[in-house]
Amino acid sequence: MTARVAEAVGPGFLAAIDSLDACKKRVQRAWSQMEDLFPICRSITGDGVRQTLARISADVPLEITEVPSGTPVFDWEVPREWNVREAWIEDERGRRIVDLRDHTLHLMSYSVPVDAVMTLDELKPHLHSIPERPDWIPYRTSYYRDGWGFCLPHRALEAMRPGNYKVRIDSRLEPGTLTYGECVVAGTTAEEVLLFTHICHPSLCNDNLTGIALATTLAAEALRSIRPHFTYRFVFAPGTIGSITWLAQNEKNVQRVHHGLVLGLAGDRGPLTYKRSRRGDTEIDRIAAYVLGSIDTSARVVDFSPYGYDERQLCSPGFDLAVGRLTRTPNNEYAEYHTSADDFSLVDRDALAQSLLASASILRLADRNARYLNLNPKCEPRLGKRGLYRPTGGNHPGEFEHALLWILNQSDGGHSLLDIAEKSKLPFELLAAAADALVSVDLLRRQQSERLEEMSP
Amino acid sequence: MTARVAEAVGPGFLAAIDSLDACKKRVQRAWSQMEDLFPICRSITGDGVRQTLARISADVPLEITEVPSGTPVFDWEVPREWNVREAWIEDERGRRIVDLRDHTLHLMSYSVPVDAVMTLDELKPHLHSIPERPDWIPYRTSYYRDGWGFCLPHRALEAMRPGNYKVRIDSRLEPGTLTYGECVVAGTTAEEVLLFTHICHPSLCNDNLTGIALATTLAAEALRSIRPHFTYRFVFAPGTIGSITWLAQNEKNVQRVHHGLVLGLAGDRGPLTYKRSRRGDTEIDRIAAYVLGSIDTSARVVDFSPYGYDERQLCSPGFDLAVGRLTRTPNNEYAEYHTSADDFSLVDRDALAQSLLASASILRLADRNARYLNLNPKCEPRLGKRGLYRPTGGNHPGEFEHALLWILNQSDGGHSLLDIAEKSKLPFELLAAAADALVSVDLLRRQQSERLEEMSP
Amino acid sequence: MTARVAEAVGPGFLAAIDSLDACKKRVQRAWSQMEDLFPICRSITGDGVRQTLARISADVPLEITEVPSGTPVFDWEVPREWNVREAWIEDERGRRIVDLRDHTLHLMSYSVPVDAVMTLDELKPHLHSIPERPDWIPYRTSYYRDGWGFCLPHRALEAMRPGNYKVRIDSRLEPGTLTYGECVVAGTTAEEVLLFTHICHPSLCNDNLTGIALATTLAAEALRSIRPHFTYRFVFAPGTIGSITWLAQNEKNVQRVHHGLVLGLAGDRGPLTYKRSRRGDTEIDRIAAYVLGSIDTSARVVDFSPYGYDERQLCSPGFDLAVGRLTRTPNNEYAEYHTSADDFSLVDRDALAQSLLASASILRLADRNARYLNLNPKCEPRLGKRGLYRPTGGNHPGEFEHALLWILNQSDGGHSLLDIAEKSKLPFELLAAAADALVSVDLLRRQQSERLEEMSP
Repeated sequence: MTARVAEAVGPGFLAAIDSLDACKKRVQRAWSQMEDLFPICRSITGDGVRQTLARISADVPLEITEVPSGTPVFDWEVPREWNVREAWIEDERGRRIVDLRDHTLHLMSYSVPVDAVMTLDELKPHLHSIPERPDWIPYRTSYYRDGWGFCLPHRALEAMRPGNYKVRIDSRLEPGTLTYGECVVAGTTAEEVLLFTHICHPSLCNDNLTGIALATTLAAEALRSIRPHFTYRFVFAPGTIGSITWLAQNEKNVQRVHHGLVLGLAGDRGPLTYKRSRRGDTEIDRIAAYVLGSIDTSARVVDFSPYGYDERQLCSPGFDLAVGRLTRTPNNEYAEYHTSADDFSLVDRDALAQSLLASASILRLADRNARYLNLNPKCEPRLGKRGLYRPTGGNHPGEFEHALLWILNQSDGGHSLLDIAEKSKLPFELLAAAADALVSVDLLRRQQSERLEEMSP
Repeated sequence: MTARVAEAVGPGFLAAIDSLDACKKRVQRAWSQMEDLFPICRSITGDGVRQTLARISADVPLEITEVPSGTPVFDWEVPREWNVREAWIEDERGRRIVDLRDHTLHLMSYSVPVDAVMTLDELKPHLHSIPERPDWIPYRTSYYRDGWGFCLPHRALEAMRPGNYKVRIDSRLEPGTLTYGECVVAGTTAEEVLLFTHICHPSLCNDNLTGIALATTLAAEALRSIRPHFTYRFVFAPGTIGSITWLAQNEKNVQRVHHGLVLGLAGDRGPLTYKRSRRGDTEIDRIAAYVLGSIDTSARVVDFSPYGYDERQLCSPGFDLAVGRLTRTPNNEYAEYHTSADDFSLVDRDALAQSLLASASILRLADRNARYLNLNPKCEPRLGKRGLYRPTGGNHPGEFEHALLWILNQSDGGHSLLDIAEKSKLPFELLAAAADALVSVDLLRRQQSERLEEMSP
Repeated sequence: MTARVAEAVGPGFLAAIDSLDACKKRVQRAWSQMEDLFPICRSITGDGVRQTLARISADVPLEITEVPSGTPVFDWEVPREWNVREAWIEDERGRRIVDLRDHTLHLMSYSVPVDAVMTLDELKPHLHSIPERPDWIPYRTSYYRDGWGFCLPHRALEAMRPGNYKVRIDSRLEPGTLTYGECVVAGTTAEEVLLFTHICHPSLCNDNLTGIALATTLAAEALRSIRPHFTYRFVFAPGTIGSITWLAQNEKNVQRVHHGLVLGLAGDRGPLTYKRSRRGDTEIDRIAAYVLGSIDTSARVVDFSPYGYDERQLCSPGFDLAVGRLTRTPNNEYAEYHTSADDFSLVDRDALAQSLLASASILRLADRNARYLNLNPKCEPRLGKRGLYRPTGGNHPGEFEHALLWILNQSDGGHSLLDIAEKSKLPFELLAAAADALVSVDLLRRQQSERLEEMSP
């Protein structure tokens, strides 16, 4: 590549984290965020969510939205706000059998207030455990039906003797708000890349602290990077009802979404797993497959299914956004999922760093991918007189000259850089550099994206 | 599945024969029909056809059509009617060498009348045998060229000594009619599923008595079953000229045909074989492949070719109906084909029962398959408040809840239940039940089929 | 096949070279052409090109076009004409170290005039060799930058001692013309099949004398053959600038090109290699794959790439012609490529004969391929009354009858003979004969090609 070409290319979006080593450094900072967030008693509404968003704000600027309880959001409505001060069970001798203070999982999320004495038989229907994993506390919720419950290790449950138990849940279920936060990184176009992560799980580490850490780090790096092509919107919201509410609040704006990723479960030791968007062949699907294939041969790409995280809503047929999901081991596919065993021992710094590299690489490539138009489409142009071709003929051209020929030949508006990378087997970055070089000598023009054209009135 | 769901689902079309055991019971009755039909001297016209249809009428109501000889039917015309009283060859000592009374295959179908004495040399061009199978009588016809002939075991032919032979064929080739029968099972729409089987072969068992037995049994069961979605038309007609005549008589009506099956060769011990429609990717093709794959791993699905039975006409380019063919070993692919060895020893009750199960399963699934429209397409609806989702969150949903999510996510009008079954790997029946449940709570609406929309003025 | 059918079929286009033996005989004549052409000092312009075209004219009539230097041709212009009388280097003792008279590769093509004495150090930047192949002379050009150079074996270069060298290049770079020749074989339509071969390489045998020999032989045979369906245009032109100039001169006419082949590198011992057109799924691509598969199991079909010979220009996005390329080992994939080792020892008569067979077979099949319309599309027509079907039924039809049924069933205007050959697995020639037979009894009509329909105003 000549100096002229190198200048035309320049440093790319998120270039600062284009290696695993750079990502490992960023994970140090992310780890301390996760440690701060772990003890907070989060749910889909309430002060735990607000504290979580405040901690994220320490790293990136967030715009906070509060949506009042009762607001209709499609087939749902924003629920009452839930907060809890204390929750415990005491035996007859005044010993605390279970106490929210010990672990946020002990209380079923959205439990109604209780202040009662009851027998073990009366209590038992409200106690949840996992007989196969007698030392783990399960994670249970009752968001949409008034109820209450405690979760505890099966061993503790079995140790409970007949007798009277004092049960106290000092919770409030009152009109309030549902809270979510957004960090927007402005690009040169209004078209958006949407990054979505859920923030409603209490003291669970892989799900969902690693997702929060990953999204925060990406946002922070994007803010520090060169101005990207797309505008990047990071949404930190409670799962399901949070994305439903966000979609309801942004029903018109979602047409701006070019594509995106749901992020989560990013730190366990399982392989990187990309789940395709509902359409299954969108640009983000192809880019993710291309990137994962280059990062880790054990990485998996799986088809869309309507169970999982917020892609359930973002990819519902009425929206059908080009949004995939990047995780390591998906929800429900590891034993510790939604139990107290999903703690810091389950997650690994190097795994989180690899997830960061993968997601940053997908965004970097997606930001750079484009269709170009060859402005001299009839026969090849004279590259030599523009300083882009070797002067002596008869010998074999170099890889960069091949890249120029590929770009010129395929740039009829119908092939993206990714298409050309796949066809030519040349590295994407080399092709991108060749495209920049050809743009710099007025032989090529970047095409407006199809989505934007659709958006124009 | 809740009681509410179970009620919404109800017993399906042809539910009475959804197991191999049930099908084996039905085959008992079919067997006695085959035994009654075997001795009849059938051809493409004549009293043999009428007797055959009369025997079918004992089991299901038939509407009989008689089309006069000479009626133009596309490039053809309905031939003269052929009937025969006796046919034999006597040697000089008055011994009957060949006699139609012994086997209906002995006489070439459509032989003109003969009453003559001739030498062996004069006779030989009219004698047909199979040297490689010296004990079998071949099946030969001369429908469209005036001729005559006898078919006999090669061993018998070789035993004939030079001398004079008395030849008598007391046949009539006269203006008459071509006869076919139809049994119609009314559905809730006028769109039709066409079941076609040929009835022109004389004493041959697998081809074509098993086809007649299969179609009769299916029709009888369909008449006894709940009212299906489609209207089912069973056509019992002579091969080739019968389907040509039927198509000529119903040229306008065939646009009603949603899809269908040609049935035949259903009792031999070879594997189930589905031959795709000419288009190769129609709904019936995909359904048949899905069903056969689930019934028998040795079952085969083969591409369309323009040789075979009445799919040759139904799939001619001017009609190109979505009609496949279900057989066991296809025509011409087994040694006994079109010889006297195609008798009751060649066919097997269990094989015929499996053919019945396969064809009934295809019809059952085809009747149930549909595209639905999610009436709440933006985000998931609240299934819990409609009694369709478990109240406690955090744990894994059951298979039925997965089915609900799949149906909701994919029902944008572009995916049928079969599409969703293939994508989700969930059982078709479970998805159908989920669709019924969602229809019952007004979250889903069945789409009119595309064919019917095309038919509307 | 009946006599009637055989008559309907007749001898096909290029039938005289439909066997390897016939092709081997034609190669004898081609070989002597190659021997005559080898010593000529060719370049992209000049008398070497004219002498080459004159030798080709000895075998086939050529229309010669001379395009003046300076004529704009898309992004390029026709260069000055280059001719050379002598070129050599003498050492101090008057010994000729390098002399154009010994080998045309010794002089870098388009070298400017030089008459100077210089030291070895001054001379060295102008000397080209291949250290890894010390006995071979490389082939170098400097068409578009004024320069000069000599090419020599590395061994000779290393033997040169410090001292003064006399350098003389008696060349002229003057306004003149670029020359190309065309041989047109008229068909029954104005639609053209384009055969393109480059003629600019000096004493190199596989590249490009075998291409010239192949194209000349094909043209000579086409002129002697029955009148083909398409019009065949053979273009003999210098590489790159020749095809650019030809396209510029024929910018409107190229819409006549139905498809075509670039021919070259046809005599080495590597396997036949077909390189797909840019679109990758054109008729010529499918025909070439079909033919090569039938000729040689080691033959390769490779995807288009924008590096190679004149397909670079013919398949530039502004033209995107349906033109593939037939070679044996492609450019740059064999060690002797563009060196003096590409001489008669590299090429093999049998390999060239096989290349001739392959290219002739592709043209023969391409000329014969067509879509037909069944004029009796509703049900099968009565073939028996037209003498095309056996009179006695019940037994299996022969291959020709199968071919008739396939043609009738598939000829809805959407399937070509090649499509039907691939589906039916029947030989293309048999299907072509069946189509001819059906045309002769007015059951079938050949469709106008789509390209021609597009061309109509």
